[in-house]
Amino acid sequence: MKTLLISHADLNAIVAHVGIDAFMDELIQRLQSALAKFDPGITEIPVRDGFHYEAPVTGLIEWMPLLEHQRSVLMKVVGYHPNSPGTLQLPTILSTLSKYDPSSGHLVALVDGTFPTAMRTGAASAVASLAMAKPESSVVGLIGCGAQAVTQLHALCRVFNIRKVLISDIDRHALETFARRIDAFAPGHLSVQKATTDDIVSQSDILCVATSVEIGKGPVFQDQETKPWLHVNAVGSDFPGKIECPVTLLERSYVCPDVQEQAIREGECQQLAASRIGDDLVSVVKNTPRHAELQARLSVFDSTGWALEDHVVMNQILEYAEDFNIGSEIEIESVTSDPRHPYEFLAPSNKHRKSGS
Amino acid sequence: MKTLLISHADLNAIVAHVGIDAFMDELIQRLQSALAKFDPGITEIPVRDGFHYEAPVTGLIEWMPLLEHQRSVLMKVVGYHPNSPGTLQLPTILSTLSKYDPSSGHLVALVDGTFPTAMRTGAASAVASLAMAKPESSVVGLIGCGAQAVTQLHALCRVFNIRKVLISDIDRHALETFARRIDAFAPGHLSVQKATTDDIVSQSDILCVATSVEIGKGPVFQDQETKPWLHVNAVGSDFPGKIECPVTLLERSYVCPDVQEQAIREGECQQLAASRIGDDLVSVVKNTPRHAELQARLSVFDSTGWALEDHVVMNQILEYAEDFNIGSEIEIESVTSDPRHPYEFLAPSNKHRKSGS
Repeated sequence: MKTLLISHADLNAIVAHVGIDAFMDELIQRLQSALAKFDPGITEIPVRDGFHYEAPVTGLIEWMPLLEHQRSVLMKVVGYHPNSPGTLQLPTILSTLSKYDPSSGHLVALVDGTFPTAMRTGAASAVASLAMAKPESSVVGLIGCGAQAVTQLHALCRVFNIRKVLISDIDRHALETFARRIDAFAPGHLSVQKATTDDIVSQSDILCVATSVEIGKGPVFQDQETKPWLHVNAVGSDFPGKIECPVTLLERSYVCPDVQEQAIREGECQQLAASRIGDDLVSVVKNTPRHAELQARLSVFDSTGWALEDHVVMNQILEYAEDFNIGSEIEIESVTSDPRHPYEFLAPSNKHRKSGS
Repeated sequence: MKTLLISHADLNAIVAHVGIDAFMDELIQRLQSALAKFDPGITEIPVRDGFHYEAPVTGLIEWMPLLEHQRSVLMKVVGYHPNSPGTLQLPTILSTLSKYDPSSGHLVALVDGTFPTAMRTGAASAVASLAMAKPESSVVGLIGCGAQAVTQLHALCRVFNIRKVLISDIDRHALETFARRIDAFAPGHLSVQKATTDDIVSQSDILCVATSVEIGKGPVFQDQETKPWLHVNAVGSDFPGKIECPVTLLERSYVCPDVQEQAIREGECQQLAASRIGDDLVSVVKNTPRHAELQARLSVFDSTGWALEDHVVMNQILEYAEDFNIGSEIEIESVTSDPRHPYEFLAPSNKHRKSGS
């Protein structure tokens, strides 16, 4: 039985065909549509769970399952290991996406999840910003300039006319290399400027926060006067005890979590009483008439990451893979001709057969 | 970054090297030792969860994670689709085992889980029977003659001197082909006889029940007089509402679940008050002095399936794979030279590089 393998190299080939901008545009559109049409009676998404540990390094490995009734099961497994870039030259986030067929349990496809995670996290912020940020937003602030900041800025550049980006990172290397890392999409008129977090917070129309701040060490910037319509995409808080935003800013803002239960456990919503938490992203996206009101005021998208986003990006990738005939086939669960005979390959009459046939 | 792929064909090759008996012997020994040494402070095993559905077919897809502190994370995904043999010519149980490195989140290995599931389920019954069945047991009864029955009998034949096996299945094809399907291991002196479930229950020393009985349609045999030392391995109950054993038999027996919380939800223990449930398999295996008492009386091993069993068989397979240099390497999460640069492959200076390098 064949499983389609889409490696990172295959993803590169897909992007080479489609173009990185067209990939992101399509993803933002699909995600917006999936959120607008989301029906928990059709798509079941249990709150993710995982292992969190302090040894051998600080990190977590989580599983994020999703069932689209009668059509597919997604199992995302994602690791977050904040020391990886410094010690292993690996991304903080590594992930795989597995698609199973609910009519048999067969593993249909296995897809690298690292690149898709960065893409969909950017796309989710774009969708949230379209609903809650000022449409004329032109200044983006980035606190934290790692891998996620790249796709945050990319996604925002696709749906707003961004002219200036103010950047800050306590890691000098991340800061110095950022401008080079956005070459693939940065519009010619985009000005990239280093700034203090204070200046970033006061001058931005849209602020994206995506750091590896340690548990108990947040927030990563001070509260202060902002533009009245500031929209914050709070991306990095996704771990119990890890927060990035000052609670006073949250309390003044309309805080929209991607998944309320999860955000309360590991997002910025950890800091808020339940009564201070706004509608989730599905409700905000569905409720178009309210967008004008949210766009005029302080708002925070508490992005902890949701399997629906992964499902959307995985399906998009699998469609591209089919269109462009990209990917390879592997045999994992090769089956016997008699499904009741696990030892069939040992039978004398089969000794001459090629195994796996 | 390399992921080791162990397909079903690779498993066949491993068994060809080791021999099916030696594979099972080693697995039984390792599982017994893993249970005897089990420490929940070192190995975390959340109760499994999953999606259960009635469309497009009756089935479930479950995930069974395990963390061995500082060493490895296992994610087993397993599907159970009882109509698969009849309609798709596929096994009822399909599964994959994924091993992740807790120091980075990297997918270290991906292993076919279908054959290992059958093997470890057999091995678990052997371990339970060693603790709770009469050591001189020579008659095995099998109610349900599908894939799981093959490995149940195999495992028991490795640790008891089994001389007679009494078989029953409502599926005539499964019944007729059973003797052929145990060719690979059946001792020359083993007599295979079809029998009624009544005769099986009354004559067996050890009874294995492994059917695809529908929810609400159990039990699959009637209670009646048995040998006083009968030990039952109740293998098929692993779904809320699915039961195989008559409650009166359970109430007369010492019932040992593999995982109590799970057995109460989906095993034979669904039928029992909490006070009627005995110690779990870990406790029984650790408590050697008590074995003599249990071996003399009616006992039931309520086997719902546990990720520890999968972890043991996966590690055994990965050791064989290394010893015999079996398996292939695939690149899924190929990473960029700068872990903060998800778009590195789009940089002009990298255009000539082979992707994935």
